[in-house]
Amino acid sequence: VTLNWRHWIERTESRICLFIIDGLGGFPQDGQTELEAASPGFLNSLAPRASVGLLYPVAPGWIPGSVLGHLSLFGYPPDEFPVRRGPAEVLGAGGDILPGDLAIRANFCTFSDQGIIMDRRAGRIPSQESHALIAWLQQNISMVDKVQVIFLPGREHRFSIIMRGSELRGPLGDTDPGVVGKPLQFPRPLSEGAFKASKVVQNLNLRINGLLRSEPRANGVAFRGIDNAPDIPSFERRYLTPAAGVASYPVYRGIARLLGMKAKQVAASPDAYAEAARSFSPEIAFVYCHWKETDTAGEDGDFGQKVEEIRKVDAVVSAVHEALKPDVLVVTGDHSTPCYSRGHSFHPVPLLICAKNAIPSGVAGFTEREAAHGNLGVLQGADLLALAFAHAGKLRKAEL
Amino acid sequence: VTLNWRHWIERTESRICLFIIDGLGGFPQDGQTELEAASPGFLNSLAPRASVGLLYPVAPGWIPGSVLGHLSLFGYPPDEFPVRRGPAEVLGAGGDILPGDLAIRANFCTFSDQGIIMDRRAGRIPSQESHALIAWLQQNISMVDKVQVIFLPGREHRFSIIMRGSELRGPLGDTDPGVVGKPLQFPRPLSEGAFKASKVVQNLNLRINGLLRSEPRANGVAFRGIDNAPDIPSFERRYLTPAAGVASYPVYRGIARLLGMKAKQVAASPDAYAEAARSFSPEIAFVYCHWKETDTAGEDGDFGQKVEEIRKVDAVVSAVHEALKPDVLVVTGDHSTPCYSRGHSFHPVPLLICAKNAIPSGVAGFTEREAAHGNLGVLQGADLLALAFAHAGKLRKAEL
Repeated sequence: VTLNWRHWIERTESRICLFIIDGLGGFPQDGQTELEAASPGFLNSLAPRASVGLLYPVAPGWIPGSVLGHLSLFGYPPDEFPVRRGPAEVLGAGGDILPGDLAIRANFCTFSDQGIIMDRRAGRIPSQESHALIAWLQQNISMVDKVQVIFLPGREHRFSIIMRGSELRGPLGDTDPGVVGKPLQFPRPLSEGAFKASKVVQNLNLRINGLLRSEPRANGVAFRGIDNAPDIPSFERRYLTPAAGVASYPVYRGIARLLGMKAKQVAASPDAYAEAARSFSPEIAFVYCHWKETDTAGEDGDFGQKVEEIRKVDAVVSAVHEALKPDVLVVTGDHSTPCYSRGHSFHPVPLLICAKNAIPSGVAGFTEREAAHGNLGVLQGADLLALAFAHAGKLRKAEL
Repeated sequence: VTLNWRHWIERTESRICLFIIDGLGGFPQDGQTELEAASPGFLNSLAPRASVGLLYPVAPGWIPGSVLGHLSLFGYPPDEFPVRRGPAEVLGAGGDILPGDLAIRANFCTFSDQGIIMDRRAGRIPSQESHALIAWLQQNISMVDKVQVIFLPGREHRFSIIMRGSELRGPLGDTDPGVVGKPLQFPRPLSEGAFKASKVVQNLNLRINGLLRSEPRANGVAFRGIDNAPDIPSFERRYLTPAAGVASYPVYRGIARLLGMKAKQVAASPDAYAEAARSFSPEIAFVYCHWKETDTAGEDGDFGQKVEEIRKVDAVVSAVHEALKPDVLVVTGDHSTPCYSRGHSFHPVPLLICAKNAIPSGVAGFTEREAAHGNLGVLQGADLLALAFAHAGKLRKAEL
């Protein structure tokens, strides 16, 4: 028997709100980090009376992608639950994944005449344009190798695909080489049963690219994160706690759905988040909120924009807090995205746990440097929900 | 599949220098630790702009021996890679260990007429004297029980032995009882195949001690860390990163060779270390440096000498840093050796990571107490290379 803190969970009415600010942590430029420059009023006011620390979303050194980082924060370690991006995207786009379905995340790309990828985002074509292309692809491709093909539109260059009806088995390697200057890759079977799927998926990719050949920018597509629905216990089953999620961005809603949560996709505003939070019935004892735009600004390397987005999300956290009045509010990130590095980084993220029984940290604000001197120390993803549940009084005394 | 941060390593040209100061951590006497009293100028100047924390080289409570502590820092956990001292000593002395060879670390000792060990270091006899004894032993013993015996001189009372040619299997227990006042022990077989080796090794120890019987001080020897070459992946294979080492003291060169590193043994001076560091070709992306004398001073309980040695190594780190200009400089210890306790201790060691993308700690200096308030928190050996590789940009985003 391996004992885990989950063994001592009990159902209570207390409510936890976990607010994940995507790419929260930053790096000092001209002496200040993005958080230090933003000086978010609500979060800074919580910090001294909250318990505060730093969090490695997975473990020291890891640079988590979105899905992997979130699952680690939710206590689903990546070695035990290797969830790929495709299923999260399909669920986020509102699709369902039946047993035997393959789920694919796809990007419109720009290819050279020689079949080399020149732009992995097809110039970030507008959503309107990509939706029209998706509709046209769906008209022309409904089956490949006797497998049904369902296209799901996404934002800008992003979309997703369900392949249904022939017990295809994943996972498969990406056809997206991950960098420009290379051709599409063969979707390698990554399990013994995946040989058939790899041929069908390649045929689909080639057929789409044949149809798109004469498009000016989006003259091909590339696939990522190809897999069946993951075999993963729901959040409610794992933690005996009904849960729901709010996000403005599809894939994060998809992550919530992967864990069996009710999930709302709403506009990126304080009111929309507060209304969604208020709408959950009282038995929802765990509310997950996700804010995307901080990460986007960090990936663009736009310091001023990230500062702005931190101030925006500060108002959103405040509105959700006011609407939900949770017993425990946890605020953290799924990884750092310093403007300095224009991408996800390994740096730990600040963590704040606000609750009646949280020992006050006394720190001056919610920043990377203040959090390093907080009273929670430096934690790892697997510790997060244990502390959230403990502060919520959802854990019994551990006795055998 | 178990996922590990090593899964995301990529080969890059960036360079890491890991400088291990043996027995770095100390304990306050008259209010100051050895590091506080030494106030090393270069390390103190790095500390505020570096990321700083405390490190348990293995885990809390462990008092690591040299080989075990180093392997843990290099990310080879002792339960997975049980490496004994003999092989490290033989490799450090310039010997090679072939398949079927047994490697032994040996000490000249002083025995009473009743065969009781009175001094486990034979009064720290000078190297010149012990080398003469080694040459004489080699003349008189070339074979034992049809097994070839190769003596390798070391420093002072220390030497090592290779037993070759008969597929001997280790590991064996030590003949050295580890304390004075006891006789030699039988070298117990520690694996099923090691019965034959235990008899041969005992015969060798008895034969040597018979030959030395009339020596005034070094009238016998005792064996430790008896084993075959460990089955251990090279550093380059484990981390996809060519590596090399610099040390002034044989066994630390031996540890580098165990891990398949090129390894130089040089004089204990800033110039010698800098020259060795400069001599490595550009593809060597990981340079390990080891400084011994801080530990020796701590074991002697000589506070003033340890302060002096900390100042010396400060100049060496500075010279190596100037010579290599590494992208990431990591400075830490393999364990603490407080003068107060005259031996290795369990206390965590200060850790400093200096890199462009290291979040500045703002601490006042490189001391045990400042490090406790650093921004890296309290880490364990297994975290060290993950953070070093992350700071060096040698890790990809973790996505499935």
